[in-house]
Amino acid sequence: MAAHEEFFAGIPKIQYVPDAGPGDVMCFKHYNPTEVLMGRTMEDWLRFSVCYWHSFCGTGADPFGFPTLLQRVWNEGTPMEAAKKRLRAAFEFFTKLGVKFYTFHDRDMSPEGATLEESNKNLDEITDLALQLQTQTGVKVLWVTCNLFAHPRYMNGAATNPDCHVLAYAGAQVKKGLDVAKKLGAENFVFWGGREGFHSILNTDVAAELKHMAGFFKMAARYKEKIGLKCQFLIEPKPKEPCRHQYDYDAMSVIGFLKHHGLERDFKLNIEPNHTTLAGHSYEHDIVVASAFGMLGSVDSNTGSPDLGWDTDQFPMDIRNTTLVMKTIVEQGGLQPGGLNFDAKVRRESTDLEDLFIAHIGAMDAFARGLRNAVHIIEDGLITGMERYSSFSHGLGQKVEDGSATLEEMEAFIKENGEPKVTSGKQEKYESIFNHYI
Amino acid sequence: MAAHEEFFAGIPKIQYVPDAGPGDVMCFKHYNPTEVLMGRTMEDWLRFSVCYWHSFCGTGADPFGFPTLLQRVWNEGTPMEAAKKRLRAAFEFFTKLGVKFYTFHDRDMSPEGATLEESNKNLDEITDLALQLQTQTGVKVLWVTCNLFAHPRYMNGAATNPDCHVLAYAGAQVKKGLDVAKKLGAENFVFWGGREGFHSILNTDVAAELKHMAGFFKMAARYKEKIGLKCQFLIEPKPKEPCRHQYDYDAMSVIGFLKHHGLERDFKLNIEPNHTTLAGHSYEHDIVVASAFGMLGSVDSNTGSPDLGWDTDQFPMDIRNTTLVMKTIVEQGGLQPGGLNFDAKVRRESTDLEDLFIAHIGAMDAFARGLRNAVHIIEDGLITGMERYSSFSHGLGQKVEDGSATLEEMEAFIKENGEPKVTSGKQEKYESIFNHYI
Amino acid sequence: MAAHEEFFAGIPKIQYVPDAGPGDVMCFKHYNPTEVLMGRTMEDWLRFSVCYWHSFCGTGADPFGFPTLLQRVWNEGTPMEAAKKRLRAAFEFFTKLGVKFYTFHDRDMSPEGATLEESNKNLDEITDLALQLQTQTGVKVLWVTCNLFAHPRYMNGAATNPDCHVLAYAGAQVKKGLDVAKKLGAENFVFWGGREGFHSILNTDVAAELKHMAGFFKMAARYKEKIGLKCQFLIEPKPKEPCRHQYDYDAMSVIGFLKHHGLERDFKLNIEPNHTTLAGHSYEHDIVVASAFGMLGSVDSNTGSPDLGWDTDQFPMDIRNTTLVMKTIVEQGGLQPGGLNFDAKVRRESTDLEDLFIAHIGAMDAFARGLRNAVHIIEDGLITGMERYSSFSHGLGQKVEDGSATLEEMEAFIKENGEPKVTSGKQEKYESIFNHYI
Amino acid sequence: MAAHEEFFAGIPKIQYVPDAGPGDVMCFKHYNPTEVLMGRTMEDWLRFSVCYWHSFCGTGADPFGFPTLLQRVWNEGTPMEAAKKRLRAAFEFFTKLGVKFYTFHDRDMSPEGATLEESNKNLDEITDLALQLQTQTGVKVLWVTCNLFAHPRYMNGAATNPDCHVLAYAGAQVKKGLDVAKKLGAENFVFWGGREGFHSILNTDVAAELKHMAGFFKMAARYKEKIGLKCQFLIEPKPKEPCRHQYDYDAMSVIGFLKHHGLERDFKLNIEPNHTTLAGHSYEHDIVVASAFGMLGSVDSNTGSPDLGWDTDQFPMDIRNTTLVMKTIVEQGGLQPGGLNFDAKVRRESTDLEDLFIAHIGAMDAFARGLRNAVHIIEDGLITGMERYSSFSHGLGQKVEDGSATLEEMEAFIKENGEPKVTSGKQEKYESIFNHYI
Repeated sequence: MAAHEEFFAGIPKIQYVPDAGPGDVMCFKHYNPTEVLMGRTMEDWLRFSVCYWHSFCGTGADPFGFPTLLQRVWNEGTPMEAAKKRLRAAFEFFTKLGVKFYTFHDRDMSPEGATLEESNKNLDEITDLALQLQTQTGVKVLWVTCNLFAHPRYMNGAATNPDCHVLAYAGAQVKKGLDVAKKLGAENFVFWGGREGFHSILNTDVAAELKHMAGFFKMAARYKEKIGLKCQFLIEPKPKEPCRHQYDYDAMSVIGFLKHHGLERDFKLNIEPNHTTLAGHSYEHDIVVASAFGMLGSVDSNTGSPDLGWDTDQFPMDIRNTTLVMKTIVEQGGLQPGGLNFDAKVRRESTDLEDLFIAHIGAMDAFARGLRNAVHIIEDGLITGMERYSSFSHGLGQKVEDGSATLEEMEAFIKENGEPKVTSGKQEKYESIFNHYI
Repeated sequence: MAAHEEFFAGIPKIQYVPDAGPGDVMCFKHYNPTEVLMGRTMEDWLRFSVCYWHSFCGTGADPFGFPTLLQRVWNEGTPMEAAKKRLRAAFEFFTKLGVKFYTFHDRDMSPEGATLEESNKNLDEITDLALQLQTQTGVKVLWVTCNLFAHPRYMNGAATNPDCHVLAYAGAQVKKGLDVAKKLGAENFVFWGGREGFHSILNTDVAAELKHMAGFFKMAARYKEKIGLKCQFLIEPKPKEPCRHQYDYDAMSVIGFLKHHGLERDFKLNIEPNHTTLAGHSYEHDIVVASAFGMLGSVDSNTGSPDLGWDTDQFPMDIRNTTLVMKTIVEQGGLQPGGLNFDAKVRRESTDLEDLFIAHIGAMDAFARGLRNAVHIIEDGLITGMERYSSFSHGLGQKVEDGSATLEEMEAFIKENGEPKVTSGKQEKYESIFNHYI
Repeated sequence: MAAHEEFFAGIPKIQYVPDAGPGDVMCFKHYNPTEVLMGRTMEDWLRFSVCYWHSFCGTGADPFGFPTLLQRVWNEGTPMEAAKKRLRAAFEFFTKLGVKFYTFHDRDMSPEGATLEESNKNLDEITDLALQLQTQTGVKVLWVTCNLFAHPRYMNGAATNPDCHVLAYAGAQVKKGLDVAKKLGAENFVFWGGREGFHSILNTDVAAELKHMAGFFKMAARYKEKIGLKCQFLIEPKPKEPCRHQYDYDAMSVIGFLKHHGLERDFKLNIEPNHTTLAGHSYEHDIVVASAFGMLGSVDSNTGSPDLGWDTDQFPMDIRNTTLVMKTIVEQGGLQPGGLNFDAKVRRESTDLEDLFIAHIGAMDAFARGLRNAVHIIEDGLITGMERYSSFSHGLGQKVEDGSATLEEMEAFIKENGEPKVTSGKQEKYESIFNHYI
Repeated sequence: MAAHEEFFAGIPKIQYVPDAGPGDVMCFKHYNPTEVLMGRTMEDWLRFSVCYWHSFCGTGADPFGFPTLLQRVWNEGTPMEAAKKRLRAAFEFFTKLGVKFYTFHDRDMSPEGATLEESNKNLDEITDLALQLQTQTGVKVLWVTCNLFAHPRYMNGAATNPDCHVLAYAGAQVKKGLDVAKKLGAENFVFWGGREGFHSILNTDVAAELKHMAGFFKMAARYKEKIGLKCQFLIEPKPKEPCRHQYDYDAMSVIGFLKHHGLERDFKLNIEPNHTTLAGHSYEHDIVVASAFGMLGSVDSNTGSPDLGWDTDQFPMDIRNTTLVMKTIVEQGGLQPGGLNFDAKVRRESTDLEDLFIAHIGAMDAFARGLRNAVHIIEDGLITGMERYSSFSHGLGQKVEDGSATLEEMEAFIKENGEPKVTSGKQEKYESIFNHYI
């Protein structure tokens, strides 16, 4: 393969063309990376990242159908040849799209070998190339993660496997993953516990498994400390699928687990809205909740279909959703060192190579619109003013705020002041105002 | 009203008749209170409780229909007259049914007055009667709770209301509720936050509201300490309804909240399976999880229909479910001071007075069968043996258990021992064995 | 009560102010009734209707809380006095809002009496006033319906009640409802079968109940014919709530039922998207499907929250949804004699009288934006061009279209032409283009 | 490969051992094929069938994991060698298990070739072997179906594909499938429209697609007639997955579609309860509804987990469910020529070969218990007596039954008889009685 092989021939670098027409889907109509809002560039607020597994390893297979994405020529050749082609294709894509970050699993980037040693050797070889391409292009790793769910050895769990031998394998794999994170300068490291949970309570000891999972995280935190790895650890909640019950159900479940085990200073959360909606919440819910607890680290910016009960990992296109997400992110001062990772895949029916661009462009534009809307909302202050809570700034309210109030004082206040007055929640008014911005 | 007024005329005390036929629905076929299993009586394992609101205050109204349960003559008269009739009817019911506990909200038991003082005076008068009836019958209070959701003042929340005046009202009401709990010797005190949450993120400051809720609980804990109230505090999770988003979503959400605010020693959980299934979990899930964290305090033993998205509070009749619940309860050594409270209502179409008995009898029998099944399962040890986890009792597994293992040791172990062997999860085998017991 | 009593004092007729700011929620920013699109006025495309029950009879009570909407002074007085006040208030509202249609249930408009005769007499008296107000204002009845679900007699069903006596009562009530429809010139008549279904298969004979329901509809159709009533009959599907299983689950269920019983020429469908989403479909699904079968008669233009499992009847504010609905309506040439009925209620926390205006204005603007977007989409033809189906316009495709093709021809075609070429579904492209318009 | 190759070495024919203990999972404890109930043998009521795809082609792969079922040695060799081994393994399994029927897709049984001709040739060769094994063992085909969803050509639909070339391919494949059904004496032929539906309304013409689907079914019906194939055609509803929206959503959707197109005499339904629950109904709902419309043809006897939103195809183990299903089947006089097909797969973690037996045995026992329970319920008549509907056997009720009643008669009846009396629905009583039987 020549150095100049081009995988997306004929596609130039994607440009910002604000007056493009409805059918112009190969340019940005809203995303203008260098535009400054509230003191930062769009690029800096948005920190977009492309995910490696869906966009470069995905085949279009689903539980009822065979691969459809047969145009991905980078998947051809021996496993190691394909791994290298795929990486070059990915960096060509990142560059043409103008995205500065990517994310990957160890086993996406390089093939599993027959032994741990062989797998590690493969990973060394491929990450050498990754490092070189990162240097050439300036694209960086938003986060790395270890795939502890696809190999059959993990079918009954990795850190929560009933067999400690499997837990040990997962530990060895994570050790290498942390080394790779250091090597490639990853800004974060993610744990997603797809097999950490159970299908049947009849064969599961929940207390034992949770204890093992906590121990596993502690080992990882100690090793990170030991090797001087500076990145942020993130846990990604998901309620179910593949397991019937997953321990990292949603943001609050993970927060509860972390706090129970004294791990809350070592981890933040990587929130994926498609997982949030599968947990029965609204799209933005876990982003808001994680942020309220100071635990929002990064976002897997995708979407599902609210009428479906499984993870579809679609590209986020709904401006209401992107506006609410960006409002939370701007209000907490940004996501750094996290970002907006497109953990999304083109539909298996979107078989043209250009569809990969169109999907990312559409989603980036949707987030750019969301950012602009959020900034306008925050600047105007009609929604975020929150005068509703003004009673907590003085008198009894202030004592509640500082924790010094008592039930006896509450009772005395009511005996003196009687019934509170009725105050409309004005939901429809806020919804109308919100609609003004989108 | 004469002391001998009878509300359930013609219904004698319900008896245990093990050889009753299928149509004999006014006797216990399985619940034998004095039968001993694993060293305790059935009555002691099961600690059944009747809830006051559904069974004695319920009218059969639903969002689409007017009251149907018009035979409840105890609802007639002035509010205070009705409150007393209702209480006598309830104690007649408890006694005939043979249940030793009941639960109530402050506002079920006695009517809200025009002012807090009047409401408190009403409550004093009615709880005098309750105390007298408790002494006469030996029936005890499993738990009390304050209704902080029905009055319009609480429409935007009680402890999480944007207006501190409302929070103060809730505080005053809880103060009185704790006094009542002490007066009546309640074994537990429950907080259910039906309005603690939000409908629209557009008018809500989640972080502020959560902080106020924590402060509210701390005030309650301090007052409990001050008055020497010995009962267990319980929080009852529910994911949604009436609010779109409720803060106490499920067991793990509450555990996370409690631990974040250092409240975990003051509270346990009251788990209602109908709430658990609304949160997207299986029936027994939160009972198992709460128990695994040492936080299972009591159970609201009801059920929903898994194909419905709202709380139906049906009587639990599914033996699989009652078996799984009782297995967890027996394994943790019982529920004391908690119990199995029937937070369930007869269908609004079940208009005969006898339906109230039939429903409780059916549910009590279902739990008695569940208890027997659970004891057999535990005694036989075919399901609970958990040999699956034996690798954690020695070697590397033991180091994981005691927290001393490292990733480096994991890697070394794998380099020495290679791939773990494949071990079947045997789910269908466990399901078949389980079916043997039910 | 004086003729000039004003219920919404200080609120003038709502105006179209296209350049209003984000906080201006008491004017239309998008809905311009006389603006012409594709040959019709906005008013004619949209045919907005206000529903009587939520907006004028609603109290804000929910299953967990007492009434909150205490400012509705039209609910005061004796039942008949209140009924008249309410009607005057409603017509003041319709007029100020500028909506030309309303909808009501017989029992919303006038109180149920002790006997059928008394109920009918009440209805005669109140509908006399309604007719007078209609004449004065030009506001018309989009549809009438009979409330066959709220009274306790209907708890086990109306047309599907196991007791024929109840079915007879429902029949008598519908007879009067049809007379009222004629008297008031209603353009449609709706049947919503909230109690036509079952909670438990254990006490239900599904085949018998469905047969009775069909018979009931046939009687209504015959009586309509007899009295020369010209309006369109509509069935409104809902999957569940209040019943666990409702026979009119969704559009296709009703279509199947109608066709099975030969009723498809007598009825069309009134689709409520909040019901559609409760049935597991996307918001616009049943509107599209009903239209595809030529059965879309009218729309109850509301919304739910996709993460909730019950009917919330919120005002529709999502522009994506209103665009998709209006696209279908414009493509089928409009909804006449149906319309867009706001079967929606302000939240129970929205206690200000102005909230009733704000909510309707926000929803009307949302539909006006949806209409404009839909017209642009249709005129540009980038989405609706549907070149994807061009193979059916010639050759074998044409034979499929006209029903003359055979499997043998299919086989011969494949033997000659081999494998079809892969064609991308381009979903993300269409989503991007769609986003351009909203 | 020798004729005597044994795939399940060491496993003898499964026996009925009614007094087996809880751990004895390799025998029937309840299923006694020759036992007679209500005039038929258990075997005749239950007509169990093993599905070929899950049990013999399944690999244990899921969307997040690689194959786990590596012990299936029959998958080894060239595609055609494996196809033959697999078939021999399957017949060994059928025989040892004692099941008299199996079901398969054309492409499970024999591999797809490079062309239609090659695929057909493969199918001829393998079905020759199947016919021979059928004759040797007496095992018969319950139903055949064509796989019109797995190959990439079908990604945008088969009968509903926008490209008629794909529809033609599907037609050619079905033609061959019908020939095979005749050759093997299949008792039914199933259509499952997994790709007949859509993901996005933005690229879909619903009316056109439904028309093409109807045309496709008509061609199949004509060809069946032409070749003298006697089997029953069945459509299997599923609401979603793989498509977001599938046209054959549930029983009523299919009935509506069939009746709209005049296809109701050519088709019945094959109901899969896991699909029913995904459509938002209770487990038994569509079996009851299809039977009420005279359209229940066969059952795919599996189960899902009600808390999951996708198809898990688990073995049915819940006795409540099997009892309700068998009650409906016995009441309609059996399923002939349909049966109970185990469209179920062992969990991917159930990696032992014996798990395949254990799962089927557990499910067969669950259905045998369900059958016994159903027979007792029917014989005792406490649940199915349905005295609730007795008012329809005389007077006005009879006129409703025979279709001659009018609204005027309804009104006259109410004017004479007034308000109906309140009748309890007695749901809890029926639930208690039902529990007696299980």
